[in-house]
Amino acid sequence: MNIADLQQQAEEMVEWLAAYGADPEGGVTRLLYTSSWIEAQQAMDRKMRAMGLDTYYDDAGNLFGRIASEDPEAGTILTGSHVDTVKCGGKYDGAFGIIAGLLALRYLKETYGPPKRNIEVVSLCEEEGSRFPLTFWGSTNITGTAPTDHIAQIRDSEGIPFVEAMNKAGFGLGHYRSPLRKDILSFIELHIEQGAILEREQTTIGIVEQIVGQKRLTIECSGEANHAGTTPMGWRKDALRGASQMIVAIMEAADRRGAPLVATVGKIEVEPNVSNVIPDKAAFTLDIRHPQGDVLDAFCEEAVAICFAAAQDRGLQVKVNQHLDVRPVGMDASLLRSIETICQAQGLPYRLMPSGAGHDAQIMAAHYPTSLIFVPSHRGISHNPAEYTSKEDLAAGVQVLIRLLYELGYEKETIS
Amino acid sequence: MNIADLQQQAEEMVEWLAAYGADPEGGVTRLLYTSSWIEAQQAMDRKMRAMGLDTYYDDAGNLFGRIASEDPEAGTILTGSHVDTVKCGGKYDGAFGIIAGLLALRYLKETYGPPKRNIEVVSLCEEEGSRFPLTFWGSTNITGTAPTDHIAQIRDSEGIPFVEAMNKAGFGLGHYRSPLRKDILSFIELHIEQGAILEREQTTIGIVEQIVGQKRLTIECSGEANHAGTTPMGWRKDALRGASQMIVAIMEAADRRGAPLVATVGKIEVEPNVSNVIPDKAAFTLDIRHPQGDVLDAFCEEAVAICFAAAQDRGLQVKVNQHLDVRPVGMDASLLRSIETICQAQGLPYRLMPSGAGHDAQIMAAHYPTSLIFVPSHRGISHNPAEYTSKEDLAAGVQVLIRLLYELGYEKETIS
Repeated sequence: MNIADLQQQAEEMVEWLAAYGADPEGGVTRLLYTSSWIEAQQAMDRKMRAMGLDTYYDDAGNLFGRIASEDPEAGTILTGSHVDTVKCGGKYDGAFGIIAGLLALRYLKETYGPPKRNIEVVSLCEEEGSRFPLTFWGSTNITGTAPTDHIAQIRDSEGIPFVEAMNKAGFGLGHYRSPLRKDILSFIELHIEQGAILEREQTTIGIVEQIVGQKRLTIECSGEANHAGTTPMGWRKDALRGASQMIVAIMEAADRRGAPLVATVGKIEVEPNVSNVIPDKAAFTLDIRHPQGDVLDAFCEEAVAICFAAAQDRGLQVKVNQHLDVRPVGMDASLLRSIETICQAQGLPYRLMPSGAGHDAQIMAAHYPTSLIFVPSHRGISHNPAEYTSKEDLAAGVQVLIRLLYELGYEKETIS
Repeated sequence: MNIADLQQQAEEMVEWLAAYGADPEGGVTRLLYTSSWIEAQQAMDRKMRAMGLDTYYDDAGNLFGRIASEDPEAGTILTGSHVDTVKCGGKYDGAFGIIAGLLALRYLKETYGPPKRNIEVVSLCEEEGSRFPLTFWGSTNITGTAPTDHIAQIRDSEGIPFVEAMNKAGFGLGHYRSPLRKDILSFIELHIEQGAILEREQTTIGIVEQIVGQKRLTIECSGEANHAGTTPMGWRKDALRGASQMIVAIMEAADRRGAPLVATVGKIEVEPNVSNVIPDKAAFTLDIRHPQGDVLDAFCEEAVAICFAAAQDRGLQVKVNQHLDVRPVGMDASLLRSIETICQAQGLPYRLMPSGAGHDAQIMAAHYPTSLIFVPSHRGISHNPAEYTSKEDLAAGVQVLIRLLYELGYEKETIS
């Protein structure tokens, strides 16, 4: 295989897919079941067929391209990622995993013909949760863990019901085939790192050991609104002062725990939020991530204790709501060793690492042996039009994937 | 004078005026030159005339009720406050100062006949700055300090030009008479405290020594937006963490300075303000007040230094904008002594105090001997439908005003 060709193809396909949902600022917005999403899946379907793959949709809107084994009993090796984006996102997040799979499958089919096991690439319909208040709609449908009880109530920010949007896009129960899959032997996801560790360490491949667990809390402080000029400092019940005290103390506690723990206060809402009134409400989010569940739990408890202590100190009421609790997920150890060996054989600098971001691989991992492979993100920027990965790094990822899919699809006699 | 009658009249007139601009939640919204404002001034005009006062408007929309002296050379003792309110404000802020003046003038005229000096009550057109981005429009026109250069550019939030609104309400240059006044010998303003000091100390009358100086700053922190899961703590440039550190340190510095210094962070805006992205922007307001200019300046410098130190600590850029710098204003010492003597003679518990809020008295004080007298605000609540002052306290304020206006208008031979 000509490396320069692969680099060029990878780069061209990233640009090609980014045209669906492109915005004038250079970003991409491809939200689930919107017209840009439909056009992207349709174009991907044509591209897959042009590359010699058999294609099909499932009822959720996941699109598959397949190289079939001649053995009708054979299971399936699945690779891919999600086609949806955040609002004004980048060109690589999700998209690269699909493109890498497509390039790998074409190469394998052209070079080796039919595999021992079916190999499929999937363009997963949804992962980001950018349009509707649900995430991982693609992978949870495949694994049979989608929250189907709730979708009747779910609407987007314009009030459009989820089910209506799905049906209008041509999907829903009975439109194609059930998304639930029992035949998958392994799932391999390639993804950009969305962090700067690989780039800073001049490493090309990140092999994920665990996807971090994550808790998301909202902490609501209530005090007393009062006139900024006529209320002495000592009489105040200042919700924003209390919240600031909590944020500073939680961040310092996170520093003390050290890597790989991360804690983020990304959002704060203050009422009445005018310059000359002491705030009576300040609500902030806290996002905590760690690859070990016990550390995650312990830090969460510490953070909540900090909030209650600061609230008492400042005469505030505090209410803590936990609205996300995702446990850490380990990737398959045997696949991990195979990828390490491939990187060594190909002379690619690699490292083992946790994934601080959530990925479809964490949903798949509970059901199938799963691996998640990172390529570098320039400056760690993601969910942003400035998202960038060099063509050299893209192609390196595809090379690793080709070799792994070859081993899994063509070479080994059994998949444990 | 029957105290029970005075209490009842004060309370009834507060309710009567509050009907103009009343909203269903019990609040009052009477913005400059709106229909509720026009109706309030017209009703006030009729009420003044029914109470035996001569009335007139000036070009700005200030409404005056007058007891004229028989001496054509006599100067004028002016009392009153502003008729406009904040959005969904209370019944007492501003309104009480006008009502108190009206009740006092009626009593004086009925009891003593024509005074040695003209005595007038003014219903000032505007003080709050709630509709247009300008404040003190009533008192600055009287003192000749209104920002008349800028008003051609000023619009309300609906885009209505200031001048158009003024003309439509029937005011503007040449409609009545110039607002500029050279004949005023003293200005006396009665107002609710808008703080809880008098109530907590079970004191009926607050005699203001100074109206605090005030600085208002905006502090903008800029860092780097990054993924909450993939960016190690040590690599972050978290604008909200930096801002929180600044807020905590500024508040602690304010505590150390102690009363009467107050410092308030009432407003914060964060970008992108989503739970899973490290914020790259956090801008907050800082409102600082103190009755001494040098302390105000020194604390402001200290706060700015805190911000720069915290920004350096967290790798942030910081930009400080000062957009308000009002110097402290002292009230007239001779009037203050007269009011003290009156409180003692009437057996009313009183105290000297600063005003933490701005008032028309601070505009007038640069031009005429001025006094500002407070009555208690229940729980310190103001700019809120829950604003409340008991009829006993209202009447006590009116009694003090009656006696002071009597001394100034009827008794003393000269006003120094």
